[in-house]
Amino acid sequence: MTESAGTERGTTAAEVIAECRLLATMSEEPGRTTRRFLTPPVADVHAHLRGRMEELGMSVHTDAIGNLRGIWQPENARPKRLLLASHIDTVPNAGAFDGVLGVILALEWVRIAQELQIPRAIEIIAFSEEEGVRYAVPFLGSRAVAGIFDLKMLAYEDAEGVRMEDAIRSFGLDPGKIAEAAVDDGVIGYIEIHIEQGPVLEAEGLSLAVVEGIVGQSRLGFRFTGQANHAGTTPMHLRRDALAAVAEWMVAVEATARETEGLVATVGKIAADPNAGNVIPGVVDVSLDVRHMSNSARTHAVQEFIRLANTIAHRRGLEVEWVEKMNERSVKMDTILSSDLMAAVEAAGYSAKKMPSGAGHDAMVMAQRVPSAMLFLRSPGGISHHPSEAVLEEDVAAALRVGQFFMRRLGG
Amino acid sequence: MTESAGTERGTTAAEVIAECRLLATMSEEPGRTTRRFLTPPVADVHAHLRGRMEELGMSVHTDAIGNLRGIWQPENARPKRLLLASHIDTVPNAGAFDGVLGVILALEWVRIAQELQIPRAIEIIAFSEEEGVRYAVPFLGSRAVAGIFDLKMLAYEDAEGVRMEDAIRSFGLDPGKIAEAAVDDGVIGYIEIHIEQGPVLEAEGLSLAVVEGIVGQSRLGFRFTGQANHAGTTPMHLRRDALAAVAEWMVAVEATARETEGLVATVGKIAADPNAGNVIPGVVDVSLDVRHMSNSARTHAVQEFIRLANTIAHRRGLEVEWVEKMNERSVKMDTILSSDLMAAVEAAGYSAKKMPSGAGHDAMVMAQRVPSAMLFLRSPGGISHHPSEAVLEEDVAAALRVGQFFMRRLGG
Repeated sequence: MTESAGTERGTTAAEVIAECRLLATMSEEPGRTTRRFLTPPVADVHAHLRGRMEELGMSVHTDAIGNLRGIWQPENARPKRLLLASHIDTVPNAGAFDGVLGVILALEWVRIAQELQIPRAIEIIAFSEEEGVRYAVPFLGSRAVAGIFDLKMLAYEDAEGVRMEDAIRSFGLDPGKIAEAAVDDGVIGYIEIHIEQGPVLEAEGLSLAVVEGIVGQSRLGFRFTGQANHAGTTPMHLRRDALAAVAEWMVAVEATARETEGLVATVGKIAADPNAGNVIPGVVDVSLDVRHMSNSARTHAVQEFIRLANTIAHRRGLEVEWVEKMNERSVKMDTILSSDLMAAVEAAGYSAKKMPSGAGHDAMVMAQRVPSAMLFLRSPGGISHHPSEAVLEEDVAAALRVGQFFMRRLGG
Repeated sequence: MTESAGTERGTTAAEVIAECRLLATMSEEPGRTTRRFLTPPVADVHAHLRGRMEELGMSVHTDAIGNLRGIWQPENARPKRLLLASHIDTVPNAGAFDGVLGVILALEWVRIAQELQIPRAIEIIAFSEEEGVRYAVPFLGSRAVAGIFDLKMLAYEDAEGVRMEDAIRSFGLDPGKIAEAAVDDGVIGYIEIHIEQGPVLEAEGLSLAVVEGIVGQSRLGFRFTGQANHAGTTPMHLRRDALAAVAEWMVAVEATARETEGLVATVGKIAADPNAGNVIPGVVDVSLDVRHMSNSARTHAVQEFIRLANTIAHRRGLEVEWVEKMNERSVKMDTILSSDLMAAVEAAGYSAKKMPSGAGHDAMVMAQRVPSAMLFLRSPGGISHHPSEAVLEEDVAAALRVGQFFMRRLGG
């Protein structure tokens, strides 16, 4: 890192972190950060971000799904603009960085582009919704921008019975204009900066990664049915214990997942019936979540997990049923844009780490419309969706430095 | 079976079964059999049984804990009487035989003794409470008869807030006289006839067994604490999955129990936190129920299960805590009385099967006061505490025939 690339002139990493923590105080609940789609604190966040965008000379508006959008239009700009975006909604009792960090860093990247006099328009989008908390469907903001927002969703109701279209109207917006939120063809690409929300970068001692794509995901439910019986009067060899069968299956699932590079398989949810200490469980329901960047590897693993369930249940005289609840293909990031981003990471002096994202992001929606790439920042402890979610100052400084090199490539 | 031992003169097995099914209609709930301690249908059962006892010339009274007691006092009786007893309360939505069958068969054994002119007094006790449903404490009836009823329990409240002493008063009894329910020294022994409530006799194709004793029981709670994390972003090798650890432990517990003759170990209850399909479980609570006739074998097994939990948790970077919730020693039946019962079983032409009881029975309370023995009848399908609980006519006939031979020994 011989080059002093100018972050000392702009905002410091500490200031970026402080700004995220300030926005985290704009919440539906005192003392905790909870900011669902178009709830009152969203207006406070908009007011703050609008001020920041206007300071940068950007023209700002809110589209009909509630995305705050600022456009920096330099003189003599080349055709087509770059999109820099992330979301500003949160899960309940959230941390300060999931989503918001990407918007604040986007503002800094625009400042860098201005300082470097890059002849390229840049649009920042602060997506109104990504987490899927209020209406149980995620990516409302990016769906509208990608032009794939299903208008039927306007009739969805939140937990208080408020229809989505009414929530939009209450925020002063016109749900009839959602189609106008879609981007035109004048977009060169989309970049999203986000915390990793996992432990990989920390385990490898790295600040940053370029995301290869979003893994595909299968979710299934399994029901193992044996025979509930008295825990005292039923000898081991005469049992058809549904929980013992599930235990054997879970051990096999874990072992198989560990053997398969890049595969994750999780049994997160379990319920035994009758769930009494002195009764052998007769029925056990479990969830299975399987993810991999390769759709064929994922499908193959799911088939293996089903085969294991059948084999174990059959040997123990149990029945097993399963139902597929989700089967989403992986989404690859754009190769060229990702290479540009990676070149900037390397030029800035950081390791050229590529990794898949195990979680969904707006980039997987935007990739359906425009070339998309993502930059991950290390998550200390792998912690996210929790008040102790954090980001290291050195990693924010790294992202600012990457911005310098990325903008130079954009201008070059 | 060359000897026609007189059951053709008495009640048939089919009539015994029909009488149990009749009593099952005396219930707190229409269409299901639920008869908790001193609820109104208990009075109906008392009225029926009192009539049957009086037909047999027995003198009948209800003691202060609600046990219905009938005494057959023949002329020229030897000193000391035999107790024949079982309980008449039920679990919710019960079958027709758990408890009640033992009372009806006791009536038939008294009839047999009368026919054979056995010079021995016999007291039948229909215990008012064994299941522990209404006041969450079992064996109320036999505790009183054994003289170990703790009067502090009179202040216990049921789910509706009714104190036990008030329930007793509402039934027309005087809770101040519970101490008088205790048996005097004029008892030669106690015999309880009961359905097995397990699958052992059916699996071995046998009608009857003489119970060696009631197994000792340990109950523990284990908490495995790992780290909740995102199911998508956390690679397998960076997980501290509490449910995966519990699965490995449950497999080891089952394998250990299978290797140990006479041991049963059951994980009946499980709860994962946060119990969401897309989150790696951070905390899992499980119950463990361990039973064996040998107290040292049981204690040794419990220590091994704790050791396994510690080993597995430590290897996976988890914490494990455990708490002992019950540690009850086994109760042996009386050797001499059990030998007499076994001799009658063999003389009646049946296999001399001895087995422990994995469930608790009034006999384990009574054994603390008087020599006690139990006779088990096969449970079809091993099913109990369920409306489909049943008993085979041939097995009831066997128990009647054993009564013939037992009473002859008693008179000899």
